Amino acid sequence: MATSLETQHPIKALGWAAKDSSGVLAPLKFSRRATGEHDVQFRVLYCGICHSDLHLAKNEWGGTIYPLIPGHEIVGEVTEIGSKVKKVKIGDKVGVGCLVGSCRQCEECANNQESYCPKQIISINSRYYDGTVTYGGFSNLMVADEYFILRWPDNLPLNCAPLLCAGITTYSPLKRFGLDKPGVNVGVVGLGGIGHLTVKFAKTFGSRVTVISTSANKKKEAIETFGADEFLVSHDQEQMQAAAGTLDGIIDTASANHSLLPLINLLKPHGKLILIGAPQKLEVPVFPLLQGGKCIVGTACGGLKETQDMLEFAAEHKILPDVEVIPIDYVNKAMERLEKGDVEYRFVIDVGNSLKAE
Amino acid sequence: MATSLETQHPIKALGWAAKDSSGVLAPLKFSRRATGEHDVQFRVLYCGICHSDLHLAKNEWGGTIYPLIPGHEIVGEVTEIGSKVKKVKIGDKVGVGCLVGSCRQCEECANNQESYCPKQIISINSRYYDGTVTYGGFSNLMVADEYFILRWPDNLPLNCAPLLCAGITTYSPLKRFGLDKPGVNVGVVGLGGIGHLTVKFAKTFGSRVTVISTSANKKKEAIETFGADEFLVSHDQEQMQAAAGTLDGIIDTASANHSLLPLINLLKPHGKLILIGAPQKLEVPVFPLLQGGKCIVGTACGGLKETQDMLEFAAEHKILPDVEVIPIDYVNKAMERLEKGDVEYRFVIDVGNSLKAE
Repeated sequence: MATSLETQHPIKALGWAAKDSSGVLAPLKFSRRATGEHDVQFRVLYCGICHSDLHLAKNEWGGTIYPLIPGHEIVGEVTEIGSKVKKVKIGDKVGVGCLVGSCRQCEECANNQESYCPKQIISINSRYYDGTVTYGGFSNLMVADEYFILRWPDNLPLNCAPLLCAGITTYSPLKRFGLDKPGVNVGVVGLGGIGHLTVKFAKTFGSRVTVISTSANKKKEAIETFGADEFLVSHDQEQMQAAAGTLDGIIDTASANHSLLPLINLLKPHGKLILIGAPQKLEVPVFPLLQGGKCIVGTACGGLKETQDMLEFAAEHKILPDVEVIPIDYVNKAMERLEKGDVEYRFVIDVGNSLKAE
Repeated sequence: MATSLETQHPIKALGWAAKDSSGVLAPLKFSRRATGEHDVQFRVLYCGICHSDLHLAKNEWGGTIYPLIPGHEIVGEVTEIGSKVKKVKIGDKVGVGCLVGSCRQCEECANNQESYCPKQIISINSRYYDGTVTYGGFSNLMVADEYFILRWPDNLPLNCAPLLCAGITTYSPLKRFGLDKPGVNVGVVGLGGIGHLTVKFAKTFGSRVTVISTSANKKKEAIETFGADEFLVSHDQEQMQAAAGTLDGIIDTASANHSLLPLINLLKPHGKLILIGAPQKLEVPVFPLLQGGKCIVGTACGGLKETQDMLEFAAEHKILPDVEVIPIDYVNKAMERLEKGDVEYRFVIDVGNSLKAE
């Protein structure tokens, strides 16, 4: 881009951005596009912090475009709408999750699976159709095509922003792989931001839930706080062996490298190990996969319709993420704590009250 | 077992067995059980040689019980039946594939998926209910419970024995994963025993077939002989890139270690990479799996009903494996050639005419 960040677009905005792979965030004046005829502009009120914001800020996956304004769990209040917008009106509460664009013509888009559209545009660190970079919700103002705007249910607290990535990322595979009903045994690896929501959704669906963790001291929380039925310490071979062949599916949220073999062994024949985390190096346990007809499958957030359904379902059943709400000037400390796993269970930035443009 | 091989059972039999991990086969007198009331005894006429026979003979997977009598693609003629047998009569042509036992009570057995029964008994190198070792079709005589006996269709040549493992192992996932219809794009990695049958079945189903091979000189055969629609050389990055995102599923028959990334890239979103070969070491390409909602799934032969269906289908549509028929005293040479991939496309031992008990 030849033009500077500030002059690409006419609408002035203020965000917090990482400028290099230190990942340290600092205030940055930038700009948003004018509200097009299909666009919805909104004032950001809350924005969750996802582990992938951290990976991107530190360029841990490569390919980060600096400056990076993170945040893809964005909730706000509509300030302006384009002439053709029908979905919402000024003053409505809305959300934007991982996506701000997709081709809307391919098979995936036709099947409401926009998160698998090969031409999808992610809310941060991607290029929009005009070539400009997408900036996320660590900012006071957001604009997006109404197609990618979620209606926020009236009775859902606004700080439940993490539903927009963590929530849909687990709701989607639980639904797709039939893990959303009584009689089904679901495993959850890792009791973090996504993991605790997995337990909540799966229990609400009526499934039986087993939490698998490296850390024995998560047992009390898993069972007493979130209502999991069973708890396994992953390095306790006796426990793991006793539970072999019992699970229909496992949601694996671990983002550190780990062995898949003990998890595959927990699955029934034809069971599914669903990867959500993005470890660098995982080995396929080939024989157990062949013998059990088992699979390792990846999943990426979810489509727009599914995300709207998930929000309504969460509102109806009071599935709320456990959040620690912070002001934006705490964001660097929060990122440090997130890296150490020191959060129960998701940071949410109170953007509305703590980030004011002059 | 305290008793010797010869005295465990009353029925004298002659086989060719490997006695150690050299894998070299030599004649061995052994015994079969008397025909029980649900049993079918048959004279072996033909037996295919599968790559897993070779792996087992050389103890390459560990756990081989010597002496090992290989052979799990067995066709013969019924010589005796138990009092309660209804499926076949003396003189009928029959087959036995990978399985001679399963619990017949679990969910997998109830769903005709006996090959995923955790208590399944494989036709070779397993322990039968009475603790004796199972011996395969490199022998003059076979006995099995009628439940595990396949009726051999009248118009199917008897030397098509490889359908009983190679055939069902690819037919089953093609069916299960919806790769059995027009409009579907199927990839096949490796044009060997299973690979060439995959092309034949998939083309008969009406699917569009792409063969992916390390060796450019297989193109003519793939397309002209077997009717594949496309051919890709796996190390030709330009070809592979041009075909990215085009396949609904891939049957991966390669048994050597290889990179899964280029194959995952060939898949459409939600595409399935179906492993049939058993390489020792494969890495999960995590990101492409997550981004595309793709999966790596294992598969193991198939159930009895499905195997019978496959035989009828093959007979009706003349799907015949390309075989090189050999006498049993060529078996060691055949094993050597198989190891080098020097076979088009499956060895079948003419047991009936070359292995005579005195």
